Amino acid sequence: MTATGLRAEVIAVGTELVQGLICDTNSAWISERLSAIGVPTDYHTCVADDATRLEELVKQASTRSDLVLITGGLGPTADDITREIVARAAGVELVLHQPSLDEISARFAKWHREMSDNNRSQAALPEGAQVMPNANGTAPGFVITIGRARVFVFPGVPAELHVMFETEAVPRIREVAGAAGVIRVRRIYCFGPGESSVDQKIRHLMSPGRNPNVGLLVSGYVITVKITATADTPGEADELIAGTESEVRGILGEIIFGADGETMEEAAARELLSRSLTIALAESCTGGLIARRLTNVSGISGSFLAGIVSYADEAKRDFLDVPGALIAEHGAVSEPVARAMAEGVRKRTGADVAVSTTGIAGPTGGTPGKPVGLIYIALADADGIDVRECHYHGSRSRIRVRSAMTALDMIRRWAMKQDIPSPSQGEG
Amino acid sequence: MTATGLRAEVIAVGTELVQGLICDTNSAWISERLSAIGVPTDYHTCVADDATRLEELVKQASTRSDLVLITGGLGPTADDITREIVARAAGVELVLHQPSLDEISARFAKWHREMSDNNRSQAALPEGAQVMPNANGTAPGFVITIGRARVFVFPGVPAELHVMFETEAVPRIREVAGAAGVIRVRRIYCFGPGESSVDQKIRHLMSPGRNPNVGLLVSGYVITVKITATADTPGEADELIAGTESEVRGILGEIIFGADGETMEEAAARELLSRSLTIALAESCTGGLIARRLTNVSGISGSFLAGIVSYADEAKRDFLDVPGALIAEHGAVSEPVARAMAEGVRKRTGADVAVSTTGIAGPTGGTPGKPVGLIYIALADADGIDVRECHYHGSRSRIRVRSAMTALDMIRRWAMKQDIPSPSQGEG
Repeated sequence: MTATGLRAEVIAVGTELVQGLICDTNSAWISERLSAIGVPTDYHTCVADDATRLEELVKQASTRSDLVLITGGLGPTADDITREIVARAAGVELVLHQPSLDEISARFAKWHREMSDNNRSQAALPEGAQVMPNANGTAPGFVITIGRARVFVFPGVPAELHVMFETEAVPRIREVAGAAGVIRVRRIYCFGPGESSVDQKIRHLMSPGRNPNVGLLVSGYVITVKITATADTPGEADELIAGTESEVRGILGEIIFGADGETMEEAAARELLSRSLTIALAESCTGGLIARRLTNVSGISGSFLAGIVSYADEAKRDFLDVPGALIAEHGAVSEPVARAMAEGVRKRTGADVAVSTTGIAGPTGGTPGKPVGLIYIALADADGIDVRECHYHGSRSRIRVRSAMTALDMIRRWAMKQDIPSPSQGEG
Repeated sequence: MTATGLRAEVIAVGTELVQGLICDTNSAWISERLSAIGVPTDYHTCVADDATRLEELVKQASTRSDLVLITGGLGPTADDITREIVARAAGVELVLHQPSLDEISARFAKWHREMSDNNRSQAALPEGAQVMPNANGTAPGFVITIGRARVFVFPGVPAELHVMFETEAVPRIREVAGAAGVIRVRRIYCFGPGESSVDQKIRHLMSPGRNPNVGLLVSGYVITVKITATADTPGEADELIAGTESEVRGILGEIIFGADGETMEEAAARELLSRSLTIALAESCTGGLIARRLTNVSGISGSFLAGIVSYADEAKRDFLDVPGALIAEHGAVSEPVARAMAEGVRKRTGADVAVSTTGIAGPTGGTPGKPVGLIYIALADADGIDVRECHYHGSRSRIRVRSAMTALDMIRRWAMKQDIPSPSQGEG
C-alpha cells in the first residue's frame, strides 16, 4: 500500500502531556510529514518523564516499527531523561560530544549568559549516535539504531523540532526508504445528509486495501471525503486521485460544496462573486454568525451589502419593515416573519438575494408548540421567497452554527442556479 | 501526591489521528479531568482503525493500568471497529442493546431522518457491558472489565465525550477510587497588555515548586493565569487557590475579565444584564463578529437590541443615518464615520450604549495613509462618544478577532462604570 514499506511510530515524552496540561501537537505534525514521504505511522504514544515506562516503550517500539521518532525530554533539567533512557535501551553509555558542547558554549556566550552543568549535560549523547544539530536551541538531537529500528530523537519545542526534522531527519529517512513514493491527499466537503447516508453511497470505494484509499470524517456538520493516493510520483498520485474524485462527485453531486480547505462561506462567496450577485442578510437567531462568516472572505464587499441582526421586535419593525401585527399574530419565530424579514432587507438594500433566520437557539425560550431548535430560514429573490423549516438539536452554539451553515448552503445553491454573466450578452 | 492509587491510560482510536490529519485533543482533556479527581495518567496512545493493533493495545493497557479510557471508533461506518475489538479483548460477543436501539430510533424519528443498518450497529455492545447513554449523539458509550482494568469507551466527538465523561464516567471512577486527594485548577483571564508585562508583575508567584503553582498561557489575545493547587481535600485546595487568586487580582486589577471558561462576551453580557443596560452595534470591518459573539450568550436578548453590519456605504446611510457627505469627506474608515455610526444606531434603537467598528481588515484595501490594520472603535452613550484608534497586524481573521475583543472589552469596562440599579432608589 505504501511505496517505502517502512512503518513508523512517534513517542512524545513529558509528564505535562499525560497530565493534560499541554496537548501534544508534535506527533500529528511528524506523521503528516512522514505521510508526505510515503511512511505511514502506526502509533502515537505520550509517556511521562518516568525512566521505567519510557525504557519499556522505546524497546517495544524498536521491535515493532522501522522508524521511531521521539520528541521531548532533551532539556537541561533533572526530569529530562530521554538521552539517558534511549542510551540504556540501546545498551550503550552516554559520552560527551565535544562539537555539541562547543556549540552550546558558543550559544551561551552569544546570549551573554552563563552556562550551567545542566546545560553541559545536553551534550552527552549515546555512544555511536549520529548527532542532529539544533539550529534553534541548545539541545542537539540524535539518531541511533535499536533492534530493527532507526530511532530519531528531537527536542519537544515545535520550532526546533520542525527545522531539525526537515534538514536532518528527512534526508536520512529518504536514504533508508530508498526511492520513496508519495502520498497525496484530496479532501472533498459535503453538507446536508448524514454521515451514514454518504457512507452507504460510496462504501464500494472504501475497501481497506484500495488505492486511492477513501475515508470519511465528520466535523462541524461537514462530511469530508478523504481520498489518499500512493504512487511513485506526484503525477501518478494526482491521476489516481482525479479518477476517484470524479466518481465521488458523480455519486454525491451538489451536496459537495468545496475541497482542500475551502469553507462553506468561501464556496457561497465564490458563487455570488463570479456572477456579480449582491446579497443582504436579516439574522435573528443566528445573531450575526452568517454575516461574520461571509465577511471573513476577503473581497466579499463586492457582493455583501448589509446585514441586520434584528434581535428585538422593534428592530424587525424599524430596520426590516416587519409589521408589528404580523409578529403579534404569528410570533417572532414563525414562517411569515421569516418571509417578511428576508423580503424587508431585500427591498431596503436592493440586493439580488436576501436570507433571513428566526428561531429558538435555546437553551431557554422553547415551548411545546415552538421547541428549542425550531429554525426558519427564508431566501428571497426577485421571483419570490422560499422558507425552510428546520428542527435542530444540541447546544445553543451547535444550533446556531448549523443554521448558519444551512443558510450559507442555500445561498450557494441559489447562486449556482443563476446565469453566469458573459462578456457578450445573449451568448454562452 | 495522589491518594487514589489508581493509574489510568487513554487510547484514542482513528487512522486520521496517526496520519496527523487531526490532532488528538480528547486525551489531554480526559487526563486533566482525571487529575482533578486524583487519578494520574501514564500513557496516551493514538492507534489506527486496525483490528490487530487495537486489540493488542487494549489487552496491554488492561494489564498495566487500572482505568483505560478509549475514545473514537463508535461511529456507524465500516472503519468504526472499537465496539467489536473491545468485545474481542474482553472475550465476549456483541449483543444488541435494545434500549440503545430505541434511543437511536427515537433520535432519528425526532430528526425526521431515516435510520440505516449502519446506525443500528451502534446499538450492538459487548455482552455484560454497562451502557453510558449519549445525550448528544447516536453512539452510546459503555464500561466493561478486562483483566485488572475498568475500560471506559466514549465517542470521539468532543461535545459528546465531555458530557458523557462528566455524567457517566466520573461517578463510576469516584466509586472505584474511594476518597481521593485532589488537584484543583483555577484559570483567570486577562486582556489588554502583553504576556511579558503580566509575567513581570506576577513572576514572584511563579517559582516551580510553589503550591499553588502559577503559570501563564497565551491564546487568542487572552492571557490566562493558571493557578493549580494540590491538597488532600477539595476544601483545602480551594483555600490555597483563593489566597493566590486574591493576590493575582490585587496586582492585575481590571485587565482581568473572567475566570474558568468565561469568555469576553459572557463577561460583557454579565455586566450589561446585571445593570439592565441595553446595547446596539454598528459593525463594518468586524462584519457581525461582535454581534455573533454577544448573541452566543444565552439570555442576551434582555440587553441586545440590534446590530447593523453596514458593509456598503449606502447601508451606513440608510440604516445608520451616516451622512453621505461625511463618508465622501473623510472616507468610510475614519474617526468621524465611526462616531456617526455609533451615534446613529444608538439613536435609531434607543439603546443605552452603542458600539461601532470601521477599519481595514485586509489583506487588500490598505493605503499608505490608511494601512491594513487601522481600526476605529467608537462607543456612544447618553453623555457622548469615545473613539479608539487601533493599529493591529496579522491576518484578516486575527485583525477582526482582536477588534471584536477590544470592542467587547470596551463594553465591559463601560458597563462596570455604570450604577447598579438598587431596589430602593437613592440607596446602595
